[in-house]
Amino acid sequence: MEIKLSFEGKEFAVKAGTPARELVDLLELSEKKPLAFKIDEELLDLHSPVRHGGEVKPIFPESPEALEILRHTASHVLAQAVKELFPGVKLGIGPATEEGFYYDFDYDRPFTEEDLKAIEKKMKEIVKKRYPLVREELSREEAERLFSELGERYKLELIREIPEETVSIYKQDRFVDLCRGPHLPHTGLVKAFKLLSVAGAYWRGDERNPQLQRIYGTAFFRKEDLKAYLERLEEAKRRDHRKLGRELELFSIEEEIGPGLILWLPKGAIVRKEIEDFWRDEHLKRGYQLVYTPHIALRDLWKISGHLDFYAENMFAPMEIDERAYQLKPMNCPFHILIYQSRKRSYREFPIRYCELGTVYRYERSGVLHGLLRVRGFTQDDAHIFCREDQLEEELYKVLDLVVHFLSVFGFKEYQIYLSTRPDKYVGSEEIWEKAEGALRAALEKKGLPYEIDPGEGVFYGPKIDLKIRDVLGRFWQCSTIQVDFNIPERFDISYIGPDNRPYRPIMIHRALLGSLERFFGVLIEHYAGAFPVWLSPVQAVVMTVADRHQEFAEMVYAKLAEAGFRVERDFRNEKLGFKIREAQVKKVPYMIIVGDKELENSRITVRTRKGENLEFTIEEFAERLKEEIIQKIIW
Amino acid sequence: MEIKLSFEGKEFAVKAGTPARELVDLLELSEKKPLAFKIDEELLDLHSPVRHGGEVKPIFPESPEALEILRHTASHVLAQAVKELFPGVKLGIGPATEEGFYYDFDYDRPFTEEDLKAIEKKMKEIVKKRYPLVREELSREEAERLFSELGERYKLELIREIPEETVSIYKQDRFVDLCRGPHLPHTGLVKAFKLLSVAGAYWRGDERNPQLQRIYGTAFFRKEDLKAYLERLEEAKRRDHRKLGRELELFSIEEEIGPGLILWLPKGAIVRKEIEDFWRDEHLKRGYQLVYTPHIALRDLWKISGHLDFYAENMFAPMEIDERAYQLKPMNCPFHILIYQSRKRSYREFPIRYCELGTVYRYERSGVLHGLLRVRGFTQDDAHIFCREDQLEEELYKVLDLVVHFLSVFGFKEYQIYLSTRPDKYVGSEEIWEKAEGALRAALEKKGLPYEIDPGEGVFYGPKIDLKIRDVLGRFWQCSTIQVDFNIPERFDISYIGPDNRPYRPIMIHRALLGSLERFFGVLIEHYAGAFPVWLSPVQAVVMTVADRHQEFAEMVYAKLAEAGFRVERDFRNEKLGFKIREAQVKKVPYMIIVGDKELENSRITVRTRKGENLEFTIEEFAERLKEEIIQKIIW
Repeated sequence: MEIKLSFEGKEFAVKAGTPARELVDLLELSEKKPLAFKIDEELLDLHSPVRHGGEVKPIFPESPEALEILRHTASHVLAQAVKELFPGVKLGIGPATEEGFYYDFDYDRPFTEEDLKAIEKKMKEIVKKRYPLVREELSREEAERLFSELGERYKLELIREIPEETVSIYKQDRFVDLCRGPHLPHTGLVKAFKLLSVAGAYWRGDERNPQLQRIYGTAFFRKEDLKAYLERLEEAKRRDHRKLGRELELFSIEEEIGPGLILWLPKGAIVRKEIEDFWRDEHLKRGYQLVYTPHIALRDLWKISGHLDFYAENMFAPMEIDERAYQLKPMNCPFHILIYQSRKRSYREFPIRYCELGTVYRYERSGVLHGLLRVRGFTQDDAHIFCREDQLEEELYKVLDLVVHFLSVFGFKEYQIYLSTRPDKYVGSEEIWEKAEGALRAALEKKGLPYEIDPGEGVFYGPKIDLKIRDVLGRFWQCSTIQVDFNIPERFDISYIGPDNRPYRPIMIHRALLGSLERFFGVLIEHYAGAFPVWLSPVQAVVMTVADRHQEFAEMVYAKLAEAGFRVERDFRNEKLGFKIREAQVKKVPYMIIVGDKELENSRITVRTRKGENLEFTIEEFAERLKEEIIQKIIW
Repeated sequence: MEIKLSFEGKEFAVKAGTPARELVDLLELSEKKPLAFKIDEELLDLHSPVRHGGEVKPIFPESPEALEILRHTASHVLAQAVKELFPGVKLGIGPATEEGFYYDFDYDRPFTEEDLKAIEKKMKEIVKKRYPLVREELSREEAERLFSELGERYKLELIREIPEETVSIYKQDRFVDLCRGPHLPHTGLVKAFKLLSVAGAYWRGDERNPQLQRIYGTAFFRKEDLKAYLERLEEAKRRDHRKLGRELELFSIEEEIGPGLILWLPKGAIVRKEIEDFWRDEHLKRGYQLVYTPHIALRDLWKISGHLDFYAENMFAPMEIDERAYQLKPMNCPFHILIYQSRKRSYREFPIRYCELGTVYRYERSGVLHGLLRVRGFTQDDAHIFCREDQLEEELYKVLDLVVHFLSVFGFKEYQIYLSTRPDKYVGSEEIWEKAEGALRAALEKKGLPYEIDPGEGVFYGPKIDLKIRDVLGRFWQCSTIQVDFNIPERFDISYIGPDNRPYRPIMIHRALLGSLERFFGVLIEHYAGAFPVWLSPVQAVVMTVADRHQEFAEMVYAKLAEAGFRVERDFRNEKLGFKIREAQVKKVPYMIIVGDKELENSRITVRTRKGENLEFTIEEFAERLKEEIIQKIIW
């Protein structure tokens, strides 16, 4: 059979099963030899047979697809090293990931730090040997025989579940693995790599299966890329919100309360208060109406809303009260709907915008919980807008405008935005979907926000916009979401009276700017590395004495600033100034006010910033500066 | 047997069983004949035999105890009237109450408004006849025979449960009732009375029993007292927070959510926000630290805290998650304890004051739920103070100081204060109890607050102060509470490091100023009759046009005030000014800004207050006044 290929406008054909490496000569690519090919959407390494036709694209180390191939081969190098060093080890799976690669091993004792070093050393030897990777295709029986001889019971389990009659294996040196590929031509290309950690992982992610050991690593084509990545990793560790949360006493998760449930300690709570105050002020200014709703409701409410049909597994178990089942709320929408329904509505009141900092509870498996970023109880900065069809675009624009204003105040000015459109299964008419998608698009364009379309990825009840923010480390975090909903107004049968005195169904928008206060706070801690801007700082300034004789003046400075409403602390301890400064520095206090002989003499204060600058002020000047910084919400 | 009595310093004796009416001559009281006597703590009417000795006090119509006697007799008059008008009716019970009296009847159709009128008329006839009340004592058998002949099955049930061998009955005319007394000498004294309503009531308050009809009434000795009471009742009805809550769209309770769970509608939520902001500011100013805690925790936490032992029936049912039971929180204290325990504490940090607007859920029988005043989910304005023994008095003083400041801002300046002391069952040493009671007393006295002692009424874990506020109708509402707790620090084994580097147990104070935001809001609505002071008003001013040509200027007035952050609304409808004013008046908007020809000419605005005054301002002057009123939290 002939396979039709095209490359740079030229068409040609090869026999089905031709090894892809023959394309190198065919396409006259020998000068800059590719690592692999992409034929239409399929990635094909040089070892693999060409079986499907299409547009051919050679993959070079610079290609975005190349890293995945490199890392996949690195995982094989890792597996070979482990097998050689630890006879009797059994292999699980070993894929490339977004950030690197891993391999799962079944071994009778835990791998240590020392083991990782030895493994890395062994890997380097394997790399040096430049072993070619060889692909073979075996019948299922041959494969079973091979892996059963090798004693690889996990591989056998996998083979038995492959539907095809032929399976592929990859070999290098004496090492052999069940694998689809793609892989590099030889191990010598895996030059810049590093093993990172080892952790437990259940076979196939199921806790009823044996627990294997997963060794994580990463790999790049260039040493400098690896170095940059490892530095970024170090930086991320230094900024880890769980570590900073402990050190700065921002929040805590206690075993006695349960996983995924957050205690906001005083220093974290004050940050939350500042965010909440800002949030409420901005919303009231922009014509939102504040509401408060309970955390539980009769379970039947979630039947009407439909949550019990499509969201039940994320909901907490019900409670029985007076022989009726109640339910902890996973969402605020049904409550806002009932507020809407508490009396008749007229088109004259529209748009109606209800907002609430509503605490919801959702079930997440304990394994996926992660500090503040993935929790079971969190406060959504939620709002629901009820409007007429002709108001939709303007409302969406206003929401986007608020989102951008809000996020940029916190220092997030780069976004990834996705517009998800009508899926296969949907409610509402095609016409209304088109209108809503058009309104979302128009709002994005009017606001000048670049976006990508996620075709068919809208929820069944309406199209939506998801917005991810980029933090200082270049990581993207999903926070804001704007969803149009054609379903819930229908289910609750809500209406308004139009100018013609007839009832109409309103359109509803769900939206959150920050997503959840917990998660956003987690992102903020990492983004600022705990060094919050002054308006958010739990302690805005600490007054320090050089010696005891400065205490009286220092007390006066403290009193003036505290009186003016700033969050000030005193450090009048009989300790060296350097020690006091270091402590305040660790606590990331923005301003250290130093009171010594000079200050006493001049009636001025020396202010050291946490960046190490030294400034001089009168107390009034400094108070003025603090005030301005807080009002302007300046980030430094 | 002789019974020893004393009266005005003189001692004398009577034979046991002497009718109390004989005391009238004995004590030479014939000039101003008493209605009854009190011998030590026992109330004795003139019909009853003297059986116990003690200090004798004659009861006259002015005596505080007299109303209860009057109302008890009124209930008999009511029962007689009903029996005469509705043959076949069966009697339940008919006591005097705090505010009047009631009687329960079993009858085969509901009593109507018309019936109540007829009953009242019949009662007046009975009063006019001045039937003497006659007391008789029967053996249990005789009594059973009598009431079985009368067909009074509920009375029979009661007789069977009386432990004594002798029971008393009271008769008037042909009417007879099983009754302990006391009663008035004759029905002629029940002059000023009124029937108020009829409602269903289960026999003995148990919903498995038949439902009876309870007729409520009230009675006084003087017509003017009755009139004043009925007016106050009318006024209370007019101020009913459930009625105003609906009319002013402050809150709503929806069947779909469940009883006792409050939706704060936008106009109520903004009042709550103002109260919360004020609350948080005051607390931060006074050295409290804000915290936020989850609404659920593992059920085991409530074992440690002891709530499952002594509070379980007020707790919601548990939820199962990952095979562990979780519990909606009925209190915030265990969470604050865990925050305290999140690291080691030193005496240097003391006192530590954690405060939270913490929403808790408590089970209450659905029958006792009442608007905002008795609910199942509510937000406590909670705080827990950890301090050393020697700091207790000062901390308690500071709490009292804050309570009084806070309540007086809302206009509550009269209190009833109770100090509850050590009960029979208690934890902690006698010594610490005495210290704590002494500290509470000293704090009250230092603050100059009069109080009463409730001996033995402290909770087992410590003494407490309860404070009731008096509203404009003279009703008292329990809001603030301050409790010392020796138990919870013990149960959680919390400690701090003293100056000697050894661990000590801190003392803990629980306190709430408002009690619950829901309940306090309910009281506020009734206290202000919905006419909130400007700082709390959902709408602070409404701008009204006299005619369409005034719209431009009115719009400018609106914009300036809205821009300045005031809560302003527009009423530019094509309606008569009087109509607009009436509407704003119903909504209790404090200021109506009227824009007509005159205003346009002078560039000034006419401002009508909801009290009906007319004022004239420039916009700037008016904005200044609003601002001042809000800052000063002025009540008018």
